[in-house]
Amino acid sequence: MVASKEYKVIGTRPIRHDGTDKVTGRAQYGADIRLTGMLYARVKRSPHAHAIIKKIDASKALALPGVKAVITHQDFPRPPEGVGTSGEGAPQPWRFQVENFLANKKVLYRGHAVAAVAATDAHIAEDALALIDVEYEELPPVLDVREAMSENAPILHDDLRTKDTTPLATNNTDKPSNVAAHTQIKRGDLEKGFAEADVVIEREFTTTMYHQGYIEPHNGTAYWSKDGHLTVWNSSQSHFVFRNQLANVLQIPTARVTVVPLEIGGGFGGKLYMYLEPLAALLSKQTGKPVKMWMTREEVFEATGPTSGAYVRVKMGMKKDGTITAGEAYMAFEAGAYPGSPVGGGMNGIFAPYNIPNIQVDGYDVVLNKPKTAAYRAPGTPAGEFPGDAVINELCDQLNLDPMDVRINNAAHDDDERPMGGNWGVIGALQCMEAMKNHPHYQSELQGENRGRGVAMGYWGNAGGETTSSASVNADGTVNLVLGSIDIGGTRPALAMQLAETLGIRAEDVWPRVVDTDGVGFNLFTAGSRTAFAGGWAAYELGQQIRAKMVERAAKIWECKEDEVAYGDDGIIRGPKDGDGKDRQFTFKELCGQLGRTGGIIEVGANINKTSVGVSFAGHIVDVEVDKDTGKVKILRYTAVQDVGTAIHPSYVEGQIQGGVAQGIGMALTEEYHFGGDGRMQNASFLDYRMPTALDLPMIETVLIEVPNPGHPYGVRGVGEVPIVPPLAAVQQAVAEATGHRFNNLPITPASILEALYPEE
Amino acid sequence: MVASKEYKVIGTRPIRHDGTDKVTGRAQYGADIRLTGMLYARVKRSPHAHAIIKKIDASKALALPGVKAVITHQDFPRPPEGVGTSGEGAPQPWRFQVENFLANKKVLYRGHAVAAVAATDAHIAEDALALIDVEYEELPPVLDVREAMSENAPILHDDLRTKDTTPLATNNTDKPSNVAAHTQIKRGDLEKGFAEADVVIEREFTTTMYHQGYIEPHNGTAYWSKDGHLTVWNSSQSHFVFRNQLANVLQIPTARVTVVPLEIGGGFGGKLYMYLEPLAALLSKQTGKPVKMWMTREEVFEATGPTSGAYVRVKMGMKKDGTITAGEAYMAFEAGAYPGSPVGGGMNGIFAPYNIPNIQVDGYDVVLNKPKTAAYRAPGTPAGEFPGDAVINELCDQLNLDPMDVRINNAAHDDDERPMGGNWGVIGALQCMEAMKNHPHYQSELQGENRGRGVAMGYWGNAGGETTSSASVNADGTVNLVLGSIDIGGTRPALAMQLAETLGIRAEDVWPRVVDTDGVGFNLFTAGSRTAFAGGWAAYELGQQIRAKMVERAAKIWECKEDEVAYGDDGIIRGPKDGDGKDRQFTFKELCGQLGRTGGIIEVGANINKTSVGVSFAGHIVDVEVDKDTGKVKILRYTAVQDVGTAIHPSYVEGQIQGGVAQGIGMALTEEYHFGGDGRMQNASFLDYRMPTALDLPMIETVLIEVPNPGHPYGVRGVGEVPIVPPLAAVQQAVAEATGHRFNNLPITPASILEALYPEE
Repeated sequence: MVASKEYKVIGTRPIRHDGTDKVTGRAQYGADIRLTGMLYARVKRSPHAHAIIKKIDASKALALPGVKAVITHQDFPRPPEGVGTSGEGAPQPWRFQVENFLANKKVLYRGHAVAAVAATDAHIAEDALALIDVEYEELPPVLDVREAMSENAPILHDDLRTKDTTPLATNNTDKPSNVAAHTQIKRGDLEKGFAEADVVIEREFTTTMYHQGYIEPHNGTAYWSKDGHLTVWNSSQSHFVFRNQLANVLQIPTARVTVVPLEIGGGFGGKLYMYLEPLAALLSKQTGKPVKMWMTREEVFEATGPTSGAYVRVKMGMKKDGTITAGEAYMAFEAGAYPGSPVGGGMNGIFAPYNIPNIQVDGYDVVLNKPKTAAYRAPGTPAGEFPGDAVINELCDQLNLDPMDVRINNAAHDDDERPMGGNWGVIGALQCMEAMKNHPHYQSELQGENRGRGVAMGYWGNAGGETTSSASVNADGTVNLVLGSIDIGGTRPALAMQLAETLGIRAEDVWPRVVDTDGVGFNLFTAGSRTAFAGGWAAYELGQQIRAKMVERAAKIWECKEDEVAYGDDGIIRGPKDGDGKDRQFTFKELCGQLGRTGGIIEVGANINKTSVGVSFAGHIVDVEVDKDTGKVKILRYTAVQDVGTAIHPSYVEGQIQGGVAQGIGMALTEEYHFGGDGRMQNASFLDYRMPTALDLPMIETVLIEVPNPGHPYGVRGVGEVPIVPPLAAVQQAVAEATGHRFNNLPITPASILEALYPEE
Repeated sequence: MVASKEYKVIGTRPIRHDGTDKVTGRAQYGADIRLTGMLYARVKRSPHAHAIIKKIDASKALALPGVKAVITHQDFPRPPEGVGTSGEGAPQPWRFQVENFLANKKVLYRGHAVAAVAATDAHIAEDALALIDVEYEELPPVLDVREAMSENAPILHDDLRTKDTTPLATNNTDKPSNVAAHTQIKRGDLEKGFAEADVVIEREFTTTMYHQGYIEPHNGTAYWSKDGHLTVWNSSQSHFVFRNQLANVLQIPTARVTVVPLEIGGGFGGKLYMYLEPLAALLSKQTGKPVKMWMTREEVFEATGPTSGAYVRVKMGMKKDGTITAGEAYMAFEAGAYPGSPVGGGMNGIFAPYNIPNIQVDGYDVVLNKPKTAAYRAPGTPAGEFPGDAVINELCDQLNLDPMDVRINNAAHDDDERPMGGNWGVIGALQCMEAMKNHPHYQSELQGENRGRGVAMGYWGNAGGETTSSASVNADGTVNLVLGSIDIGGTRPALAMQLAETLGIRAEDVWPRVVDTDGVGFNLFTAGSRTAFAGGWAAYELGQQIRAKMVERAAKIWECKEDEVAYGDDGIIRGPKDGDGKDRQFTFKELCGQLGRTGGIIEVGANINKTSVGVSFAGHIVDVEVDKDTGKVKILRYTAVQDVGTAIHPSYVEGQIQGGVAQGIGMALTEEYHFGGDGRMQNASFLDYRMPTALDLPMIETVLIEVPNPGHPYGVRGVGEVPIVPPLAAVQQAVAEATGHRFNNLPITPASILEALYPEE
């Protein structure tokens, strides 16, 4: 690890402020909420993947003793005139968003919510579901992205037209389509590029829907007061975005909605979206009582947003010396039932670690009869970048080139022009590649039978955006830090440490607290690997403001000019010598003790809205062994190298990397949404949806490369997302080495390995 | 009502933001707290008013199944070297404060806390109290303030010496004393003043201890996390001061203490002090569980702080024309068991409404074996000012002068020198007197037998101090306002309205929220009638900051200079004409919709620490009828005139005045602490401690005089405290007129009236 500056707090590993509460069970999660007079609500869901709703009759359910209310789509207020989108923080058009909360006229996937029941206890609510009669007219479902794009596919939305922003815009017709959008990234001359290559190959790849697999199911409790104030308690990745969306879809003023964030038991992108909260709110409005809702695991799988399954076709050309001359990709991403797949993440990711002169990437956002997809850690990038690195690995094999040498020779550099314009700024792609090449793991020889080694790179662009934060200084030298971004992976300590560093005090002397939406200004979601970056900027600015005010106070006490006072990075405030020629100074704590008599407490606030995020690169090395009897792939050794900018709290950076690797391995080998022909997910439980556990994986070694982001005072880059990207291609290559077969359809299940090894059986 | 400016929001009567929650029972008070695994604790109290604690044996209590811990004074940490006082916000020396939490070596009043027990339920905790053996050596108690000052009185504190700050400082000896302090206010030449008078009279007055009589008993729940973070939930008048005091007495860093404020069911000064919270904290630390505590009504009466009983002697001189030439007062105030009575409030109040050239006021702070006194609405002033106005009324009677003419002729004016130096600034004393004189009530003739009318004035100095607040603007034009001062009497709407006025928007569009001590910077207590003043200053500054930022954003959109944009008081932001010569403007809401694309949300913070409070005067007129058979006094009509500066929300100003009057009438007629010779309060219940209820009083008419405070942007003066001051002298005078007897010892009970009317019986 290279520390570019001598920090005192940054780079250390203090105990996280919320740690004790979490390990002792005192931390409050959404399911812990219990309010006086509370009702419990459950959701009636569609058994069909595609059907017209002819009629909903809730009379029998309403007659069941204990049932207090039933709602359907019709209970949502109509959209106000001219409202096409749900505004700030809300990515979906109003109508699609509300229809996913409760289906209107049609159900578009199995598990689609149709009605919700509130009752005095959860069992009565559950019983009442069977008493709601829904009359359906079944329609044929479409479950494959290529089929959904075909001429005669069943159409999900009669009013959906393709938005084609490519130069030729061939898809822009008035014909209803399941293709919501076609976009393109293009640079150079593809034909010329392929002509310069010695070898050109084209391959097809598929990945399935994958679920984020957070431990804690979705939950939401709402109380709609009789004076029209809505309070929601839940676990999410963005209580502020939820607040704004609730105000929007329920058509009440923003200031009349309070969202209280409880601790989150994992999100990984999947808790950026509301499912239950608007229903709980409407049920509370109708009943005058608080209403609590939560999902079963089956509901989480069937009715929340996994990431997109994808079909990707990649063509690349390489010279004999390993120079990549051209890359072309076609990406069709499943959006699920409503538009909005993360195909853009895939398009940006593929080829990103490399400086390839001639590229073209076409992306399609396609609706089909599966749950509406959601963000999942580096959204779209694992499925989009895997095919690119897989083709590079295959080209290296064909040309007998070292895959790290090829990557180093084609690496993206700071001043390369990006496909979308502008240059990269300071990046660590090459540093990661060189560290991989020189790592003992890569240098070691892999011995033994049925074993293979793979490498791959990953990219993630990171996010900035709005962060509002405040801090107040106490008389005893401790500082309270107010945060408005949800802490998922340890941002309380990471932000407290950045403030402590700025002030020259200890991390333990800063107490960070995530407050509800009434308590601080708007904060964007905790996603896009933005919180340690943007919140860190805010912490730095808060610290600078406090320093300036402390200097003012010291000057007041010493009766000198402010420019005679200096606030040292050691937290000592030094002034001019006194009348006796003696040095005058205060520790931070000493001066805090003087605040009361020099004007009062210091409280400062910061609004941040920065885009100087600094993009992230990672590269992984993996060794596997394939059991040829069972088809099981065992991970023998795993090394994850990553440019982390500056590792504020290295333990949490390492944890993020290890977690991302585990999820990427799951995508490569064991996890998948297995749909029947009727659109029913066949494996909607953690028993059947196989996520790798600690028992399945070796200790994942992390190598933190620190190439500080010049767009951040402490060099922070997002670290949480990029580590999920490389495992897919790295594992695929290792399995190829071990088996002699390239598996381009993930996951590489034991069944698919056995089928490849023993095709005749 | 005179409105000095044309306000749009100020002076209107919107529904308070927290109203619905309170009337529907949804608002959360301290008693509503329930945490998983919570223990319940009760306090063992002294049955003696004065005794040495020889031994405490808790072994039998600890053996009772369900009992988890017992604490005594010894469980508090020792004070750190050099800590004499408890720092910011804490008025008491460390030792006295901690000894009042749990007695050390001696008990000093009946009900003094000796030990506390935590158990799995409240009944077990209650049962365990009897199993704690405390061995006492009884000492004679002293229960009268004059006796406590006498030569041979029992001494409460061996180490207490009188602090005499008067010029002669005669009390400053090394002899232990119950007189904690002697202070003096002096102006002019008393002897000369009395020589100029035509009539000089001297009278003695007594008032008893009075309880604030809040509906909600004290409560406190604490959880001391295993990582050392202390969280306290309670109802108080200052969660920030409590936080700082808890950090201080428990010796943990301030940032490691969070106090969560729940709604308060009345305080009136009595909830500025901790009783249970430190005990709950120590019990939680010992047991590792949350610990909940609350008081019975008997405990509230016996062990919390009522206001001081007082002995006051007043001598005044008046010329035949009504000119007051001199006033002298001797005030001895009961501090209770530890030093710190509000005698200063009495000293400042007496004579304050009048410009008397020659005055001397001597005040004594005296400890005795009664509960430690606390603040109570205009602390010390009712007991201190009553005797002054009573003597003026008697002089007017003797000289046959109109009591309002005399007051008008002697009224304090803006530029009069105050006894403590400086002048009054802009005050409304004379305006109140003239309004009283001209009021139909005063102009009416009081007819009927056994009836009388009285008038009196009142003064309160009001308070300023630290307030920290923040506000954030939402995309739909609503605004969230973060407050750190407890809302007792409607400060949420009063502060929201001042922000709304500044922004030119509706009060309903501002959502005020009182947050916990982690959520905003330090705020001083809600007391001293400071919150609408200081919080209003903060709201105004927040509004000005938002206006400036809105102008920046508009200039950005219109691509013009900021000085070409004007933010109107109507909330319209106007810019230069566009290219077509058309006016350009945004409503506040329209421009809010543009914040996202012009840099993000607006959040602003303000730190206020103002002393420009503007003092308050009030004058009351009361008619009574005395039932000569029963001695019962009936209030026939009551008119309360008050300079309220600016009435932000007139309903709440009126409510404050009516509440203060009711309490003042209680002091005059029905309320009292009735102690037996053993120091036991004989009437520690609301059945026996007679507070006037709505059934006992007529509708109290209020007259709001608005003399804006020039030290506040909207002219706010504190309004909550001064109305408790005049009732005592006004009622006393009215009863004198009705009965022919001057009752100088309050309350004027039916028994005392009958005794005066029929002395021989």
